[in-house]
Amino acid sequence: MQKPTIAGVGFTKITAHWKQSLKDLASEAAVKALNDAGNPEINAIIVGNMLSGIINGQENLGSLVAESIGLSGVSSVKIEAACASGSAAVMWACLSVLSDLFDSVLVVGVEKMTDVTDNEDVTSALATAADYDYEVFFGATFPSLNAMIMRSYAKTYNLSPEDFGYLPILMHKNAVDVSHAQLRFPIDMDGYLNSPMVSDPLKLFDCAPIGDGAAALVITKKDGAKNSDHLVEIAGFGSATDTLATYRREDLSRLRAAELATTRALSMAGLESKDFDIVQIHDAFSVIGYLNLEALGIVERGKAHEFVASGDAERSGALPVNPEGGLKARGHPVGATGVYQIAELALQLSDRAGPSQIENPNVGVAMNVGGTGSNVFVHILRRVE
Amino acid sequence: MQKPTIAGVGFTKITAHWKQSLKDLASEAAVKALNDAGNPEINAIIVGNMLSGIINGQENLGSLVAESIGLSGVSSVKIEAACASGSAAVMWACLSVLSDLFDSVLVVGVEKMTDVTDNEDVTSALATAADYDYEVFFGATFPSLNAMIMRSYAKTYNLSPEDFGYLPILMHKNAVDVSHAQLRFPIDMDGYLNSPMVSDPLKLFDCAPIGDGAAALVITKKDGAKNSDHLVEIAGFGSATDTLATYRREDLSRLRAAELATTRALSMAGLESKDFDIVQIHDAFSVIGYLNLEALGIVERGKAHEFVASGDAERSGALPVNPEGGLKARGHPVGATGVYQIAELALQLSDRAGPSQIENPNVGVAMNVGGTGSNVFVHILRRVE
Repeated sequence: MQKPTIAGVGFTKITAHWKQSLKDLASEAAVKALNDAGNPEINAIIVGNMLSGIINGQENLGSLVAESIGLSGVSSVKIEAACASGSAAVMWACLSVLSDLFDSVLVVGVEKMTDVTDNEDVTSALATAADYDYEVFFGATFPSLNAMIMRSYAKTYNLSPEDFGYLPILMHKNAVDVSHAQLRFPIDMDGYLNSPMVSDPLKLFDCAPIGDGAAALVITKKDGAKNSDHLVEIAGFGSATDTLATYRREDLSRLRAAELATTRALSMAGLESKDFDIVQIHDAFSVIGYLNLEALGIVERGKAHEFVASGDAERSGALPVNPEGGLKARGHPVGATGVYQIAELALQLSDRAGPSQIENPNVGVAMNVGGTGSNVFVHILRRVE
Repeated sequence: MQKPTIAGVGFTKITAHWKQSLKDLASEAAVKALNDAGNPEINAIIVGNMLSGIINGQENLGSLVAESIGLSGVSSVKIEAACASGSAAVMWACLSVLSDLFDSVLVVGVEKMTDVTDNEDVTSALATAADYDYEVFFGATFPSLNAMIMRSYAKTYNLSPEDFGYLPILMHKNAVDVSHAQLRFPIDMDGYLNSPMVSDPLKLFDCAPIGDGAAALVITKKDGAKNSDHLVEIAGFGSATDTLATYRREDLSRLRAAELATTRALSMAGLESKDFDIVQIHDAFSVIGYLNLEALGIVERGKAHEFVASGDAERSGALPVNPEGGLKARGHPVGATGVYQIAELALQLSDRAGPSQIENPNVGVAMNVGGTGSNVFVHILRRVE
């Protein structure tokens, strides 16, 4: 079967972009990706975004983005799957390229989260990823739901507070030399342990920051790609849903949808978990990062902290994880995150990742999680020789 | 080329559903469509919705809908393209079925618009389909933008207030015997002319009502369909964007994106406008309905009112338009509307439309418009013999 390829990549720095609108950010990333791909004719645009209607007063992002890059006329829509909106957009772009009707599709993930009057609005907006009728209405926030998952996971595997610190410490270390990363400073275990409690046992340094950013990809057929010197193949993809409400899960210490999405993506790619050379996980909260590593089949359940503590997840380790700093330190503009993950993987697999480049990876995987594990997307990328 | 088919159809009545949640409505429509299709295995679910994040405090509708119908696990996303979200979902379902990865995809269009504290909220929410930075911020509402279009169109073609009344009068007439329609009462020209001014020259009876509803389709490959006795083929589809802001258009008296989408859909279907036997237009406002008929190539520019006044658009006329009452009288739960249009066409083309059935149609077309013409989707359906 023909596989879709990534022909071009572009993204903005993630920060509080006070002078750039949602449209400005989307345009910057899109134009970079189009140039990187050699400016092929685009058959459709898919915008991955979660919060624009609530935070920015703007829906209809398909038309907004198409016009902003001079492509008014081109077919365009927005796809939303909570914090997995970006990779959802990538997956549906892949499906359409495989249909033979479209040759090249532009994916733009964008989120502008800081442009609101106070942070409480962002917290409310993010809570729309949870079950409004059965969770949010009764006062649950998104961090508090993830705190419940962290508590359950810690209890099941008898983990200490330190055990959750290894991942954010590595993420901050990785981001220091990454020019597009949001939090480019190291943290240590004392700093982690003494960071303010957000929702017991979830600390501030367990949580990804709020930021603005956009990332874009040009998805093409391999044969139709103009700039073939840095093509990367999307060997497999898969997605799955789980219950929207966290309390309706049988076991809070695993992510069933993440396991199912992994199985589907591996099956399409004809690969196994041991084939991964580099991993992008969704560490919006430390515990979710650990659950991702377990769902991907990389470590046994309850052992993710040991894997990270061992040094194996470092850039120079046996299986590098989030070499650009992940959601925790590179940043997490929610609807854009999945596109950042896949864009970073594509750069790694074409030896274009700069300071974060790891040595000669052939197969990479990205896991992007919507809600508290209710909607998960996995993409497996492979170097094109 | 293999074409996607519609294997099952389901929808709810459109009204103010005080006792049913967004989830309840989506489930009702989805289960009806699945049963109608013989309950095939579903590879993915696409939810068409515009306003759930803003009005209902709920994003992540993919997971919500999957779980609500017992299909948690299945891949699912939400697609948004303003008032064209429903048909955008149908088009992307078609693309994915043509990819050979998916055999059957469930599309659910849903909108719950009445569940807010006051109507001003709905008006603000609908304005997110326009350009926030350049229109809405300065006070434009969605009706006021459409009033500008109506004023321009009336001036260009020297139309009287009466000329805009023919379409809503026909729509109300058609809806009287349609059990799922929202406004099942006739209106006459006096009633139309004396209806309150909303935004001069736009009157109340030019505007579609606000309502709650959900519609669903099962899109399959023809060969894989279980209940083949009422299959309808999607012979062609096309979509196009135009400037997000209304003022940036060269000519307000035509819809460029609607013309382009029509050309693309006809090209894929290998058909011409004269092949249409039945038409579904997006009459959210009377003038937009007229502009749809012109963009579809059915009437000359400026002549749509004459076509409707002549009786040709009646159920028994030469080319029936919106035999179920259209957006004006059947109702317009925005993210669901495009799915209602295509579902109604599918029933017509399989002789299952009940009281609104027209005589032996072979080819039908549905046009669904997002924003003030900034994102348009056209689907052409054909009877399967």
